[in-house]
Amino acid sequence: MALWCPKTGSVEWLNLEEALAGHDLTFFSNLIFSRDTLQTTCAMAGAKDGGLSRLSCDDNDKIARDHFATEVKALGADYVVDAMGCQWATIEGENNSIPPIGIGSHLDSVQTGGKFDGPLGVYTALEVLKVLRASGKKTYAPISAINWTNEEGARFPPGCMSSAVWSHELDIDYAHKCTDTMDRSISIKDELSRIGYLGTKEVSHKTNPLSAHFEIHIEQGNRLEKSGKDVGVVDTIQGMRWFDVSVRGTTRHTDTTYMNNRQDALVGAAKMVLEVERIGRDSKTGMATVSLFKSSPQNFCNIPSIVDFSFSMQHTDLATLKGMEAQIEEFVHKTAQESGLQITNYQNIWSFDPGVFDAEAVSCVEEAAKDMGYSYDKLCSHTGHDSIYTRLVCPTAMVFTPCRDGISHSPLEYASPENCSIGAQTILGAVLRYDEKLRKKYSS
Amino acid sequence: MALWCPKTGSVEWLNLEEALAGHDLTFFSNLIFSRDTLQTTCAMAGAKDGGLSRLSCDDNDKIARDHFATEVKALGADYVVDAMGCQWATIEGENNSIPPIGIGSHLDSVQTGGKFDGPLGVYTALEVLKVLRASGKKTYAPISAINWTNEEGARFPPGCMSSAVWSHELDIDYAHKCTDTMDRSISIKDELSRIGYLGTKEVSHKTNPLSAHFEIHIEQGNRLEKSGKDVGVVDTIQGMRWFDVSVRGTTRHTDTTYMNNRQDALVGAAKMVLEVERIGRDSKTGMATVSLFKSSPQNFCNIPSIVDFSFSMQHTDLATLKGMEAQIEEFVHKTAQESGLQITNYQNIWSFDPGVFDAEAVSCVEEAAKDMGYSYDKLCSHTGHDSIYTRLVCPTAMVFTPCRDGISHSPLEYASPENCSIGAQTILGAVLRYDEKLRKKYSS
Repeated sequence: MALWCPKTGSVEWLNLEEALAGHDLTFFSNLIFSRDTLQTTCAMAGAKDGGLSRLSCDDNDKIARDHFATEVKALGADYVVDAMGCQWATIEGENNSIPPIGIGSHLDSVQTGGKFDGPLGVYTALEVLKVLRASGKKTYAPISAINWTNEEGARFPPGCMSSAVWSHELDIDYAHKCTDTMDRSISIKDELSRIGYLGTKEVSHKTNPLSAHFEIHIEQGNRLEKSGKDVGVVDTIQGMRWFDVSVRGTTRHTDTTYMNNRQDALVGAAKMVLEVERIGRDSKTGMATVSLFKSSPQNFCNIPSIVDFSFSMQHTDLATLKGMEAQIEEFVHKTAQESGLQITNYQNIWSFDPGVFDAEAVSCVEEAAKDMGYSYDKLCSHTGHDSIYTRLVCPTAMVFTPCRDGISHSPLEYASPENCSIGAQTILGAVLRYDEKLRKKYSS
Repeated sequence: MALWCPKTGSVEWLNLEEALAGHDLTFFSNLIFSRDTLQTTCAMAGAKDGGLSRLSCDDNDKIARDHFATEVKALGADYVVDAMGCQWATIEGENNSIPPIGIGSHLDSVQTGGKFDGPLGVYTALEVLKVLRASGKKTYAPISAINWTNEEGARFPPGCMSSAVWSHELDIDYAHKCTDTMDRSISIKDELSRIGYLGTKEVSHKTNPLSAHFEIHIEQGNRLEKSGKDVGVVDTIQGMRWFDVSVRGTTRHTDTTYMNNRQDALVGAAKMVLEVERIGRDSKTGMATVSLFKSSPQNFCNIPSIVDFSFSMQHTDLATLKGMEAQIEEFVHKTAQESGLQITNYQNIWSFDPGVFDAEAVSCVEEAAKDMGYSYDKLCSHTGHDSIYTRLVCPTAMVFTPCRDGISHSPLEYASPENCSIGAQTILGAVLRYDEKLRKKYSS
């Protein structure tokens, strides 16, 4: 097993078990830092169930952002906040006229989040900056650690909001106006401003470019756990669609309205929930889920007349994904018509097709894993990450770390310190390899 | 058509169409008062959509209560508030040693209520007191107008709360602790106290008895509208059950969790919603409805793991009702087991069996309608009213008034001024007839 050694400024081979057994944590200390930071900042967020509830731009998010800012400033990094609140911390390379290599992910979580989804990636980036500073090693390109705002979209849909703006896939004015699902009077721009993170730097890969983007994330599935591999080299992503649907019926008294004289929005929506699930199951390797679901009036004696729900679907095959999309849409409208209900909103709010990561960036991840003796699988990313947007405008690759039982978005989410370190080491190796490629490219 | 004439203090016959056509509203003015009061107090409640949202013990409820108190005090009625906040306004009769004849209903509404469900009954009671006062006519028994607290149970389930306590079917300590469905930290006792309506009078038919109880209510169905009858003489009630159910699954990431590895509480609950509806339909004349329904976490990327829902069922036949109850319970547990879900709560929170109203009280209603030349149908009450509890401890009967399209619990709820007057006149006639029976009983 190879670890970056801050003492000698080079990659050295050592046996992880030996290092731990002998309590010689000199080399190891930096590499488990990301996990320590993660524990510390989760504790700051006051998560009581072992998980994390740090919704984008809430008070907990501000605490984590302030901590990140303090840490990178202590390293003497160039620190800037852009107009989506993304935090960019850059340390200089030998050639500062070329765009930095970015290592990014997100500090926000979902409502019932775990500690690892997002923070692992940001703290690994921070870790890499610390290792470089401590070792005195200078890369060719500058290196940026990035905290992308609102990857989850849990409070302000859609997700990957800032990386989408940065890659020119989403208009910043539209993004700024996106509202809190729990209080539609609050926009993300309001909240960025409230917590002091509405920066001025333009959110654009044109004016704030990267030479490449690397991201480490827990797998959120159990493929690595099943195969027993150390690390996932992510080379493809499956496609995804998010939809909002509004179903309207008529509210009347439950006890006095005959069953054949009803327009019950909850009954109609329940049929849609089951059909979405059936279509997900029938897609074999894909998924389809109704997640957000609100019914009203909330009264015992009233037939529900207002249901708003949201669903998503995922598949690696574009034709299948489009087929699922068409089937669901047809069923929703047919069911509404048969039940005397109205569909007052049927809106696609997020969409991306299946895709691939940059072959050269992926090869850097693969070579890093291979050279350090880590076992690995080539994997498809099943869900969205900021890297799915950065890949559209700069070479991008991802590293997956195994997580227990494949559970995520849950307090039960867990990745071992060993796996986190292996993943961090792979990112470091990939970045150094890509940096060498840049040196050759620009030197020649 | 007969109307009580305040001028002569006797029941006089007149043609309603003639009276209206000639704009001679002298006799009619009092009898449409209830509807005017109803419009006025609904306007006070600030209902903007033509309906009424006056949840038990909210600020709007206090306004309506204060108005009722002012009106009955102006009549010189004996006014008292009991420990459930019920308002009792009694005018003396010839024999004040016997319990009064009560005329009662409720001023509270559901969240999406209409103007008529409840207030029509209380304002008709107020109207009767006014007619008696204006006419100088003295009944044999005292007459009470009653506003029963929290008939709807929309904010604090269960419904008919105070009449249930008064008839010793519900313990007052239990009732006092019932909490707001939107904020479980608030009890109805807290709210009664806050609005100044936590009285001291014992809530008991033993210490605060009635000789009889009459109630007018909109039908909330369309049987009268279909048959074209003026009024409904209510002689039976259908049975009812209310249940709370909690379904628990496991929340995980929607995009990365394979369909065959899920415990989706929303999918399980959707099956239950549809089965409850099917059982309602198959019961022919009965109803079964899932009404309250809450799902979480409310996040696009999380499989729902927590669903709490409530359902009710109604039927005129006890065996059928019990059969429906058993079928639903079996389905809920079977579905949970098959889907890897837990049912952490399955609780019957309100229950009453099909029943009949007092034959003598019903005959007074029927005779009043008949004598005044109103056409009528004998009807079953499909839902709960305070009368279903008063009937357990004193002779009780109800009058139903036709309402447009049978719609209630909706801003679309509507009963015409003519029908409200006919119903009010029927109540007055029934009370005077019952009063005569009491005179004979106690005089002999």
